[in-house]
Amino acid sequence: MDRDRILLTPGPLTTTLRTKLAMLKDWGSWDSDFNAVTAQLRQRLLDIVNGQATHTVVPLQGSGTFSVEAAVATIVPRDGHVLVLDNGAYCKRAAKLTQLMGRRLTVLPFGEQEPVSPAALDDKLQADTSITHVILIHCETGTGVLNPLAEVAAVCEHRGKGLIVDAMSSFGALPIDARAIRFDALIAASGKCLEGVPGMGFVILRKAVLEGCAGNSQSLAMDLFDQHQYMEKTGQWRFTPPTHVVVALAESVQQFIEEGGQPARLARYTDNCRTLIEGMRGLGFEPYLEPGVQAPIIVTFHAPAHPAYDFKRFYAATKARGFVLYPGKLTQIETFRVGCIGAIGRHEIQQAVNAVADALKELGISHHDHSTN
Amino acid sequence: MDRDRILLTPGPLTTTLRTKLAMLKDWGSWDSDFNAVTAQLRQRLLDIVNGQATHTVVPLQGSGTFSVEAAVATIVPRDGHVLVLDNGAYCKRAAKLTQLMGRRLTVLPFGEQEPVSPAALDDKLQADTSITHVILIHCETGTGVLNPLAEVAAVCEHRGKGLIVDAMSSFGALPIDARAIRFDALIAASGKCLEGVPGMGFVILRKAVLEGCAGNSQSLAMDLFDQHQYMEKTGQWRFTPPTHVVVALAESVQQFIEEGGQPARLARYTDNCRTLIEGMRGLGFEPYLEPGVQAPIIVTFHAPAHPAYDFKRFYAATKARGFVLYPGKLTQIETFRVGCIGAIGRHEIQQAVNAVADALKELGISHHDHSTN
Ligand SMILES: Cc1ncc(COP(=O)(O)O)c(C=O)c1O
Ligand SMILES: Cc1ncc(COP(=O)(O)O)c(C=O)c1O
Repeated sequence: MDRDRILLTPGPLTTTLRTKLAMLKDWGSWDSDFNAVTAQLRQRLLDIVNGQATHTVVPLQGSGTFSVEAAVATIVPRDGHVLVLDNGAYCKRAAKLTQLMGRRLTVLPFGEQEPVSPAALDDKLQADTSITHVILIHCETGTGVLNPLAEVAAVCEHRGKGLIVDAMSSFGALPIDARAIRFDALIAASGKCLEGVPGMGFVILRKAVLEGCAGNSQSLAMDLFDQHQYMEKTGQWRFTPPTHVVVALAESVQQFIEEGGQPARLARYTDNCRTLIEGMRGLGFEPYLEPGVQAPIIVTFHAPAHPAYDFKRFYAATKARGFVLYPGKLTQIETFRVGCIGAIGRHEIQQAVNAVADALKELGISHHDHSTN
Repeated sequence: MDRDRILLTPGPLTTTLRTKLAMLKDWGSWDSDFNAVTAQLRQRLLDIVNGQATHTVVPLQGSGTFSVEAAVATIVPRDGHVLVLDNGAYCKRAAKLTQLMGRRLTVLPFGEQEPVSPAALDDKLQADTSITHVILIHCETGTGVLNPLAEVAAVCEHRGKGLIVDAMSSFGALPIDARAIRFDALIAASGKCLEGVPGMGFVILRKAVLEGCAGNSQSLAMDLFDQHQYMEKTGQWRFTPPTHVVVALAESVQQFIEEGGQPARLARYTDNCRTLIEGMRGLGFEPYLEPGVQAPIIVTFHAPAHPAYDFKRFYAATKARGFVLYPGKLTQIETFRVGCIGAIGRHEIQQAVNAVADALKELGISHHDHSTN
């Protein structure tokens, strides 16, 4: 049986049929019809953060990481000094790509179970004034921790530092207001909370900063200054756009607006997250994070401390029932993750919990005889 | 009327409905089902060039340029010296990205109307022994010129230089045999002669060379050594793959095989190209290139030397009739381009020629009163 499965993964995720149907057409990338799609999409992405007066949207081919790397390469001058606030796997990736491209790097480490600390950031910026830019991961998808964007942005503004925000897994779901929160670059991608298909990212850039960024990037493909300039001049992408991915995102953003925009999406995901945690608790699963720091995007659960538990078998048993889980990203303790995002609601989540219950039974783990490790 | 148009553009191009229908499903990027798609696709791409014994395929997110940049960044050591054989726009782009990433660059210029010269390359390599790598564009899509891949590869092998081939617009259509032609890296993309949708590239790398390439790339996202190592170990892409683009390419490659592989594709495109040139000649259009150097991929035509001619109006008039043309890429003389590739045959090409005839009439250019400039 090859029925379509529900993806409980934080991108790629389950998209609507309407979004996928938008891909049943070929578009000329040079054509004015396609340029209009790109222009409207850029405008709508900007609207989501109220950035019309101050910011501009630059889409980029590739996965989300490509856009993170492009943002750092474009915004940080070659002699810049980047501070990464590190409380998880995606923070470490941002640090790695910053260092690889030759920018000076400092990492401020935090525990994986807690948000980064704006006070510690303030201390660090006071202690080391050579730092020019700060990188924050808004929702650290490796665990599901929500980081304090507004407070971090306030510290950066107060200390006169540039701020680069990886909002990959939060954009469209969690509120971000560019009028209240100052950032130089904010990065997201098509296949996350906007519920498009994967294949492109985009960076929301502060126009006043972008103007001075010519020549920063050592990469041609990732030069967002160049991409922006070309797009403003011609309406086109510099290099072949992933046309089908772009129109699918345009279609999914249309549905995002019809649903009620960010507040509606947050409400649905919050409901999904609550339904998931309550349901899984009922089966004996404990979330890794305290409720107060949990973003309603993805939940890390402790694996059952039962000898019969094996992630691969557990995964296969839930997949056979139509639900795709996600492995944990922690190295010290055994966990798995379940996404709350995508074109799904509480009924799908409840069905997923039911499938997990059945999978546990199949594995010989009854819901009373396991405590989590 | 919004009927789907035929794209006479060299990627994105017209794909079959069967290829597009493959995108109507969401795939977990971590899942074994998707890993199997990736593995089979890599194998089949390798088969096309008979590279099983010597080479490996590394797919990469993004447009074709991303894969070109990644190939150079991964293959050429930081103190390497790259010679670009330049007879057109895509050669110049390869030179630019090489220089931007900080590799030493020399450009050997040729006229845009002729292939690059293996003899001139040989002289150059003899004169400057510091050159470590040569970049060749197989089909220079800016004009449509076919460059002499076998002869250039022989010179590079004889002189002991690495060869990087941009086969973006030729791969799958023109014969390339890795057993007879020695190359270090050969680059192509999903949305060209394999007739997939745009959104990913791939690089065919010589295994013996790749082994020594750790740490060459200053870009994390574009590090093909890292991408390859991770993929071999896990079966997965390092960062989120454009899942829908990947399965569309897998589906279009299946159709490529069913059609009869590269020889059948070449035969169809050659027929398209002949039909196009003959038909356009009948309307008074002259191809920019001599027949002997014309690749059956894309044809550059001189614009009519008629006062009523205007590319934008000509383009709109043919588009209204269902056919999307492509602008010229030459700066000195006025031209336009027509692609011969995509899921189209001689009947579509003949209809396109008919539409061009009608468009000329609409513009008030009768087919006898214009000579081309
Ligand atoms: C916070 C965060 N940053 C970066 C990425 C990387 O995105 P990609 O896998 O598309 O390269 C992700 C993907 O899940 C993410 O959640
Ligand atoms: C020869 C050649 N090289 C490179 C490219 C660049 O590909 P993309 O536009 O996908 O970045 C193309 C695209 O047409 C090409 O024809």
